[in-house]
Parts: sequence; structure tokens; C-alpha cells
Amino acid sequence: MSPRSSASNAGELKAEIATDGRIRVVIEGVKPEIDGGRFPIKRVVGETVAVEADVFTDGHDVVRCVVCHRHEQDSAWRETEMQALANDRFRAEFTVEELGRYRYTVLAWVDRFLSWRQEFARRVDPADVLVAARVGAELIAQAAARAAAPDAERMQAWADRLRSEHDTTKLKRLGLDEELWTLAARHPNRSLAAGYARELEVVVDRALARCSAWYELFPRSCAQQPDAHGMFRDCEARLDYVARLGFDIVYLPPIHPIGRVKRKGPNNSLQPSPEDPGSPWAIGSQEGGHMAVHPQLGTLQDFRHLLAKARERGLEIALDIAYQCAPDHPYVAAHPEWFRRRPDGTVQYAENPPKQYQDIYPFNFESDAWRPLWQELEEVLEFWIGEGVKIFRVDNPHTKPFAFWEWVIDAIKRAHPEVIFLSEAFTRPKVMHRLAKLGFTQSYTYFAWRNTKPEITEYFTELGQRPGREYFRPNCWPNTPDILTEYLQFGGRPAFMVRLVLAATLAASYGIYGPAFELMEHEPREPGSEEYLDSEKYQIRHWDLERPDSLSDFVSRVNRIRRENPALQADWSLRFHRTDNDSLICYSKISEKQDNLVLVVVNLDPHHAQSGWVELPLEEMGLGPARAFQAHDMLSGAHFLWQAPRNFVALDPQTAPAHVFRLRRRVRSERDFDYFM
Amino acid sequence: MSPRSSASNAGELKAEIATDGRIRVVIEGVKPEIDGGRFPIKRVVGETVAVEADVFTDGHDVVRCVVCHRHEQDSAWRETEMQALANDRFRAEFTVEELGRYRYTVLAWVDRFLSWRQEFARRVDPADVLVAARVGAELIAQAAARAAAPDAERMQAWADRLRSEHDTTKLKRLGLDEELWTLAARHPNRSLAAGYARELEVVVDRALARCSAWYELFPRSCAQQPDAHGMFRDCEARLDYVARLGFDIVYLPPIHPIGRVKRKGPNNSLQPSPEDPGSPWAIGSQEGGHMAVHPQLGTLQDFRHLLAKARERGLEIALDIAYQCAPDHPYVAAHPEWFRRRPDGTVQYAENPPKQYQDIYPFNFESDAWRPLWQELEEVLEFWIGEGVKIFRVDNPHTKPFAFWEWVIDAIKRAHPEVIFLSEAFTRPKVMHRLAKLGFTQSYTYFAWRNTKPEITEYFTELGQRPGREYFRPNCWPNTPDILTEYLQFGGRPAFMVRLVLAATLAASYGIYGPAFELMEHEPREPGSEEYLDSEKYQIRHWDLERPDSLSDFVSRVNRIRRENPALQADWSLRFHRTDNDSLICYSKISEKQDNLVLVVVNLDPHHAQSGWVELPLEEMGLGPARAFQAHDMLSGAHFLWQAPRNFVALDPQTAPAHVFRLRRRVRSERDFDYFM
Repeated sequence: MSPRSSASNAGELKAEIATDGRIRVVIEGVKPEIDGGRFPIKRVVGETVAVEADVFTDGHDVVRCVVCHRHEQDSAWRETEMQALANDRFRAEFTVEELGRYRYTVLAWVDRFLSWRQEFARRVDPADVLVAARVGAELIAQAAARAAAPDAERMQAWADRLRSEHDTTKLKRLGLDEELWTLAARHPNRSLAAGYARELEVVVDRALARCSAWYELFPRSCAQQPDAHGMFRDCEARLDYVARLGFDIVYLPPIHPIGRVKRKGPNNSLQPSPEDPGSPWAIGSQEGGHMAVHPQLGTLQDFRHLLAKARERGLEIALDIAYQCAPDHPYVAAHPEWFRRRPDGTVQYAENPPKQYQDIYPFNFESDAWRPLWQELEEVLEFWIGEGVKIFRVDNPHTKPFAFWEWVIDAIKRAHPEVIFLSEAFTRPKVMHRLAKLGFTQSYTYFAWRNTKPEITEYFTELGQRPGREYFRPNCWPNTPDILTEYLQFGGRPAFMVRLVLAATLAASYGIYGPAFELMEHEPREPGSEEYLDSEKYQIRHWDLERPDSLSDFVSRVNRIRRENPALQADWSLRFHRTDNDSLICYSKISEKQDNLVLVVVNLDPHHAQSGWVELPLEEMGLGPARAFQAHDMLSGAHFLWQAPRNFVALDPQTAPAHVFRLRRRVRSERDFDYFM
Repeated sequence: MSPRSSASNAGELKAEIATDGRIRVVIEGVKPEIDGGRFPIKRVVGETVAVEADVFTDGHDVVRCVVCHRHEQDSAWRETEMQALANDRFRAEFTVEELGRYRYTVLAWVDRFLSWRQEFARRVDPADVLVAARVGAELIAQAAARAAAPDAERMQAWADRLRSEHDTTKLKRLGLDEELWTLAARHPNRSLAAGYARELEVVVDRALARCSAWYELFPRSCAQQPDAHGMFRDCEARLDYVARLGFDIVYLPPIHPIGRVKRKGPNNSLQPSPEDPGSPWAIGSQEGGHMAVHPQLGTLQDFRHLLAKARERGLEIALDIAYQCAPDHPYVAAHPEWFRRRPDGTVQYAENPPKQYQDIYPFNFESDAWRPLWQELEEVLEFWIGEGVKIFRVDNPHTKPFAFWEWVIDAIKRAHPEVIFLSEAFTRPKVMHRLAKLGFTQSYTYFAWRNTKPEITEYFTELGQRPGREYFRPNCWPNTPDILTEYLQFGGRPAFMVRLVLAATLAASYGIYGPAFELMEHEPREPGSEEYLDSEKYQIRHWDLERPDSLSDFVSRVNRIRRENPALQADWSLRFHRTDNDSLICYSKISEKQDNLVLVVVNLDPHHAQSGWVELPLEEMGLGPARAFQAHDMLSGAHFLWQAPRNFVALDPQTAPAHVFRLRRRVRSERDFDYFM
């Protein structure tokens, strides 16, 4: 049955459980439910929520149950009848159509009429059938009393018919009539219905929360002239390039005034020269703090212009939220109560002994003045939202209290449900999951350090199949300004191609830090380090985007494939397939509508050509065993005709380290021509 | 650390989470927890509860956490410090020492001193060490202010020492001193501690709830003279026999007056003769109802005498609670509101169309008068508890509302925590589990229909390893008056031996319906039926207990083995082992103290001798690979010396279809004699 509105209120009914011992139906095992309902699940607009529950009662009576859902701003619940699966389990789906929070729960009742009908079907003794028909007549008359015209009249007529008929053969036919059942089903007696003990929540985001391609760039490196400090207007000139690459989001490191006190020099040097630009994450100087723009980038007006230009190209600008201060940040003088003091009276800088970060002052979230601090930090978000920014990449959220994030994200999203928060927490699994549960829209992952077939298979199976998928939306980055992996340092051009294809096809959301990525920047600051040599974090770089070896065309192609294939725009359908070569990884994704099937084969070895057999579960993939199917490699343009579960693949990293096939299920054969037969 | 009492109240602290944003620690994933804390777990007196939780905070700070527990009649919580496992998981155990309900929860805090100590250990820069020492001095001075003498003085002295010392090498040694840490650990600052959101519960039963051997008998079949109606005093004469067999509990079918209206005759006949005794489950006649004794069995006084005689022999009497009425039960006239009426005004009898049970009137739990009905049914239990009965086998609980059972069991156990309820629900898995969750102490199982090696392995692995084990205590019966399985019908004497050994060693609680079992009664009422021919449910039987082929000695031996081996007195340690013959099943159990190891091998084929190799994970079983070990078959008395993981076993059902070995880990060798070397 499709959803329909109703006067029922699952919340109100809950209270009755404790007080009315006649409520006989039980609801348990409701899924999805995170930590006993403590946290919401996540969806994007237009997605469905499939709810399952165990519903049963004592004895032989038949139960019915509905999933009730409503947008939290609607007062009326909508109901969807649940269908029985095996083993007392029921299931129904509803679709979330608007941004914001939805609530859902389950309502169930012992259905007297349906129970009667089931037993009536099994009755054989004529006297018994006669008496039972009168019981049924009574039930349908009661249903009529609950209904309005025309159902009421029709049910009353059925009650009369069941009472007056004495031929038991006819009575049995009447009692089991479909119209009778359809009428009765519309007017059940729910006076003893039970509501599930909890109302559960769904946070509904916009589509970009589920599928997004991010491009991180440093505005100050965008100048046309080498050595010039790039400005927002240089950034604007870069937008066409990023749009051509096919990304959705341009993410900028902090754009605020950079502290001068204890400023770091190139390669994290403690002895900078006066011209060194410093780290954008050392936020704040006498020129302003988190709500100001670094003068060397331009003005707030310039920033607004950049936003508008991006919007024209279908791009969104994401800002970096790094809640920390340079020593000369205005907050330090204005709000000394927000910082911890050392015994010598100086402000406590960030540290992870023996490392000291004397250019950064963390906020003291255990300050007695935590309330004004929280409010100020919320103001920072509100300020940039006011300027038109709707996406925030949050720096190190795992070093600020969970309770703060839960509060601030909830506060922001209640007013601006379209806002997206990306959690940059590279830390322990439980901490990353907690941040996702409490509200972050997307989360960075361990992808950068998952390079082998077993590592990738295990990690993405966990991300895509475990209960955490209900709230943890992975965002996979092959590199960031902090992460230049060994694989990229030593794997050459094929390594960059491999990691791009993996990120872009394993995960619906991914990002690269460019142009370092497409220009294959791969020198570390020192051996064994994941820091870039001459990192943009501490100095301005000038990138030659026209370099003939740039991967920009390859990046464009991969992003176009993502846009053209709905299968790649969601995470849950990912399945890995067997290959007989440990360097070859093979996986597929299928679209929700089952009409787009993408198969990826990647050679994880950046140094050697590898070949082997891949084995596909054709039945499971909807390809069937009987017919050939077409494999169109969207990277190379080549077409293959495959006929069996096992197929041979050879990939040379020097030419193409990956296939990204679109599989078409039906290949024409002579049987498809009308002269056949 | 061992439990210690404390003034902390986890309950009170919970409220702070919402209001104090400075609380930075998070507690989640607490286990055991049933359905988000909706239901209690179960233990018996003296058992431990191992609690695990994920506990973590933002940043690098160190957390500490305790499990808090208290008997619900105590107001003070006891605390046990949790120890870190891997991956932010912590664990602690507590022991439940008294009957009744316990509550437990988790309390956690960011430990400032421990965090300081961990960072202090990593500091190297002398100036940094000096400043940090002063921070530490401040923390320990604060701890001193929270403490009383002598700790306060000692910590103050430590604070002075840390302040006055300027040699950084000495300072580092001082700061990391164990005494300092031990003192500080005793006086943590818990002002920002977090309590887990829920208090969870444990129902603590007496030992018999975990391990019990039941013997069901019909008192009316206990007369010395054939054809005489057995009485309670005949039952008394049977007690020595049951005690010799080694059982703990004698369970009697209903002992109340039996209805005369619609009484059933032998083999469920609808045409009884006036002398037929009827079914004990058709309860109530003009002689009384659920609080009366059937006159042909004797008087209430006689029943009390039977209870006393049983007690003298270490036996307990269990009564059957069947909440249903014969048509002439006094309730039918006195409380017509407790029954459903048919349209012709007659009372609705029990039915499962097309079957009709016209001798049984079920209560209508949807009656408006449900409150007085519930109270009356509770009265029935209170009445028999008053007479000294502390164990109830509950007939078909799945045909009465869950809410009723939850209420009545809770009400009874609050007043009488020693009472045991056995749920006789042979129905769908979720329903059986719900009854166990809501309060039944033990539950009948599907054991009777699990006969093959894969069936037994899968079922008992589920019972012993899945989360349901926290509340579902299985009780395994090879037969009941309603269940004569095909295996017993056709397997002959070996089948009875096999099923006895399986029930008694797979499950810590088991029962047989005797003397039908030990006399190997195996004729069904008709082919394909599991009903006994000439079932005691409808007629009196006279059993020849002295029959030479009786299995009574075998039963005695099996029960003695159970009593002598703690490994067999609990369920969770059960592990199955590989055999290369599908007719041979092999499993082991080990006692909680790890000092009693029992290995069972059973030939499931009652018709043929079977042999094969069994393979034991010696390391896992604590036997080690290096030495031989002794296998003493406690059924046959034979001793084997085994040396390898693989051992050959041959079992002839005609002589002995099973081994029940006690494995002794250390076998003496020449190296154990002092002349060696």
C-alpha cells in the first residue's frame, strides 16, 4: 500500500503500553536504528528508507503494522503498510522528499478481522461456519461504525449478508470475499495498537552530500605571474580549469588573515623571512580573525564575486573551518578566558609532546566561558553562510569536544539544512564514527593508506555493508596537502592514475588536492615523511597547468564517467569480485534503478603489466548465464564481448592501469532480428 | 582495581551531559545490553558480569572509566575500574552475590593527571619539563584539596617537591613516580565525568536456574496397584527412585480438580467412560480450580507432606501453571467477564481451526476486566508459593499476552526472587526469545527436533554464543508427554541413550518425562504422530520400574557425571570439534575455573557402529601440543592415553553409543619422577 495520511500519532500511543494490559502486539528489532535511537540515520532528498521490524503477538492472531513517518515540521504522520518477510519480520519503505529531519517509527496492532478471516478460511464444520459468520458480521458492523459513507453503508450491507445467509458454502465464499477484506482493511480497530518505544530520525541532505567530487586548491598559488601572491580574482581565472576537470566543489584552505607571531617559513621552518606568507591554518592577526579575509587574497567583496563566478560554472566553494588561533588573533586579547594559561602566564600553545606548535593556540573547551565560546564559533559559520558558503571542510574536529559539534551542526542545519560538513578526522575508528554519527555530513577515510587488494576489499566492504553506512558517508582522497603517500612517491604516473580511478569509482564522494595531484607532485620533504617538499602549506607555488604530462585529461574523463553513470553516484551497491591475480582488483556497482552497471578492474601494481582472470557472479549481477554481454571500457573507448563468468584481463600500467567498464546486459543476437523464427 | 564503594551516582551525572558542554568524554557500545536496555540480562548468584564499553574523548587526553553496579535495594554504587582493551574498548567485571535485580552502568572522565603524566613522560626540552612540572604540581595540589588525611598531606608534599626541584632529570623521575600516580589515581577530578545514558539491569537467580535436571511424572500413575489412582502419598514413595536417578526437580502436571464437562477419554477420545480420569490440563470442576487439589490425588495437607519429603531428599517439586479452564471451572460462572462469548451465548472454547478443544476455555486477555484477571492469576502463583512451591513450569505462555507475563513474573520475583519459571513455548523463534527476555528463567528449546550433526552444531552454537544467551537459558527435553519424536520411535534403546547423553551434556538444564523415558516407551498413537499411544495425558498408566531393560542405571550415571563435573553445569563454554564421520558428533565444555574439561563423542546413528577421527584444538583447550593427556570415559570407566590432536574413536550403539570423557591435562611421564635427570 502507498503512504496515506492518518490521524494516528505513534507518539501518543506509546504511553498506552504501560497502562493498558490489553495491548498484545510487540514491536522489536527495528532497523535502521543507531545506538538505540540516540543518533539519526542519513539520506539525501529522493532516497528511500527501508524500515524493518519484528512484529508479533501471542497465539494465532494476525498482526498488521505500518511505518509512520513525518518531516519534523509536519504534524501529521504518513503511514506505509509493512509487508511480511519470513520469521515475523516486516518491511516497508518510505521516500524522503525534503531537506531537514524526518521522524519514523512503527505502529502495529492485532487485526481482529484479518485473524477472523484466516480462521474462517480453515473452518469446515457447517455449524461452526454459521457461528463464525455471525462473529464476522459483528466485526464488520463494528468497522462500519468506525467508517464514513460510502464505506460504512457497504460494510453494513456485508454484515447483513453474513447474518442472513444460511448456506454454508455461500457463506464461506462471502466471508472470504476480496471486497469485504479490502473494506475492512481500511477501517481496522486500532484502539489496542502499540507504538514502537522510540521515534527514530533521518537527517535529509541535498544530493551533493551523497555524491561529490572535491578539488582543493590554494588561492595564493593561482597567480598568473610566478612569485606573485595569488588573489581571489586569480582564483576566478582557475574556475574554468576546475570545471573542465569535472569537479563539483572547489575547496579553499583558510582564507583568513595569517598570524605573524611565530609564523612558520618554508618546509615548516622556524626561521621565516619577513616575506614568507605563513600557514593559512595559523589564523588571525591584527587584520582580523575567523570572520575576516586575508588582505593579500583580496576583499570580502572579491570573495563574494568568486562565489558568484563559481556558481555560474556549476561549482560550489567550500571553506575550511579550523577552530584555532595564531598568537596575534584578536580573540587572544579580547577573550583570554577562552585559552588555557601556562604557569608562567603565557597562553598554552598546541602540543603533542615532544612536538610543540607555538604558532597555534587551541581553544580551551573546558573553559568556564564555554557557552560564549560555542556561540562565537557558531557565529563564524553563520557569517560565511551569510556570504553564500554552504559547504565546510572542518579541520581536525576530533580535537574539539563531540558535544560541541553535535550542538553546532544541529543548530546550523536546523536553520540551513542544505549545509554540508566534511569531517577531516584522521584518527581512531570509533572517534571518526562518533563524529559521523553526531552530524558530520561526510567523513575523510583511511583510503590513502589502503593500497593492496585485501586492504581495499576489507575496508570498502566495511564502509558499504556494515551498519555504520547509515550515518558515515566516506569521502576518499588519494592526496591532501598533509598526505603524500609512499604509493604516490614511488609509483610514478601509473600510481596517480590508479589512485584516482580507485577513489572516484570506489566512493561516491572523493577529492584531490591539486594541481599537485594532476601534475604528479611526489617529492617528500624527507625520506619516510608524507609531507610534501616545498609544501603549499608554507609557501606559494606556481603550477604549470599546461605541462604535457599533466593528468588533467585523464581526470576529466574519470569525472565524466562518474557523471554519466548513476551506479558510481552511491556507495551501497559496491561488490568485489574474484580475480586470480593479487595485483588485479575487480568490483562492480549498480544504480538504484538497476539500469546502470559499472565494472572496474584495476592493476594495483604501478610497475608491471599484470593479467589474469576475473570471475563475475553473472546471475547476481542480473546478467544471466545464457547470453553474451557487452563490456564498454569508458576509459579507453574499447568494446569487448564477454560470454562467461570468467574473463581474461591484461593491464599495462604504462598505457592504462584500469578498465572502467559499462556492462550492458543484453547483446543482440540473431534472435533479436525479426526474421528469426 | 577491585570494587570499592563511592559516593558517585551515575544516575545523577547523566543529567549533566545535556547541560554542561565541558563534559568531553563519550561512552557508547556498552555490552551486555538487551534491546537498548529494555530488558535485563540474567545471572545466578556468584556469577560475574563482564561489561565492555567504548570510551574516548577528543584530542590526546587520557580517559578513565568505571563500571558502577548496585543491588537495587542498595543505594550506594560500587565501582570497578575498567581496563583498556584494543581500539578504545574497555572492560571490567563484577560479581553478583545476592538474589534479585542489580543495576549497572558506566562512568567515565578525562583524567587530567593521567593525561599530564603521559605527556610529561614524552617531554625532552628542559624548559618545557620545568613548566610542565609546575602544571603537574598544580594538579596534584588540587587533588590534595579533594582528599582527606593522610593522602592530602602526602599529595601536598608531592606538589611542593615538584615546585621546588629544578634539576630536570630529577624532575622527570619525580613526575613519573608510581606513588605519586597511585595517590592521584585515588582522587581524580570527576566534576566533568559522564554517565552512560542508561542504567542496565541484571536479574540474579539461584544456581538451579543455570543448571538443573528435571523429571516429569504423573502422580496418578504412581500407585503400587495397577489400575489404582495414584495419590500424593504414592508419589512420596517414588521420590527415592527419582533421587537415585540423580534429578534435582520433580515436575508434576497440573494437580487441580479435573473438569467433567466435555472430558476427554483415552487417546484423546471424545467418548469417555464415566471412570476415565480426564486430562490434568482441563483444570477446574465443582471441586475447585487453580488453587485447589484434585481430590483423587489427596488433600492440600498431603501435598505439603510431599513437598517436605522431597525437600528431605534434596528434591524440589515444580508445579505446572496452565492458565485455562475446563467448562465447569468455578471461574466460568463466577467471572463470565473473563471469557469470550460466541454469538449463541456460549463460552468460546479453545480452537485452532479446524481443530476444536471444547474441553478448554481460554481466558480473554482483551477483556475490559483484565486488571482483576491479572491479579487473580498472580494470586494463583502466590498461593502455591505460600505452600512452598518455588518452581513453575508454565504451559503455553505464548498463547497469553507478553505484557501479562512481564508484569506477573516481575511482581512475583520482586517478592520471591528465588522463584523459577520455565517457559513451555514451542513456537516461533522471536516469540520464544521475547518470553525469555521479559522474564522467564528457563525456556524449552527445539532440541527434540535437532538430531543430525549440522542441526545440533548450528542450534547449540546459536544458543551458547549469540547475544540471546544473556537472557535465554535453554532447557532440553528429549521427550515430553506431547513429544515422542521419530528418532525415539524408531531408534530403539540406543536412541534413548543418545538423546539422554546429548540433552544432559549439551545443556546445563535438561529434563525427561519418565518413567516413559527410561522404560523406552516408543509407540505413537498413530503413524506420523508424535503423541504417545495410551498417553498418560488421558489415562492412568502403571509402570514397571524394575524392568531389567530399564535405562535407570544409565540415567543415574549420566546425572552423577553432571554433578561431578562443573564443566557440564554451564552453557557458554560449549565448543564443537571436527570429526571425519557425519554420524559422530564431538564437543567439549570447560569449567569457569578452567579446571574441569569434559569431551563428549556421540554416535548419532542408533543402528550402526560408527568410527572415525576426532580432531581437537589442543592449544585452545589448554592441553598444549607437547604432552600426552588422559581421557577417562566416565560412562564406561575406561581410560585412554591420547597424544595428538587427532584420535580414533569407535562407538557401537548396541554397547555404548557415547563417550563422556574427562580430560586431564597433565599425564605423568618419566620426567615427573625424581630419579630422572
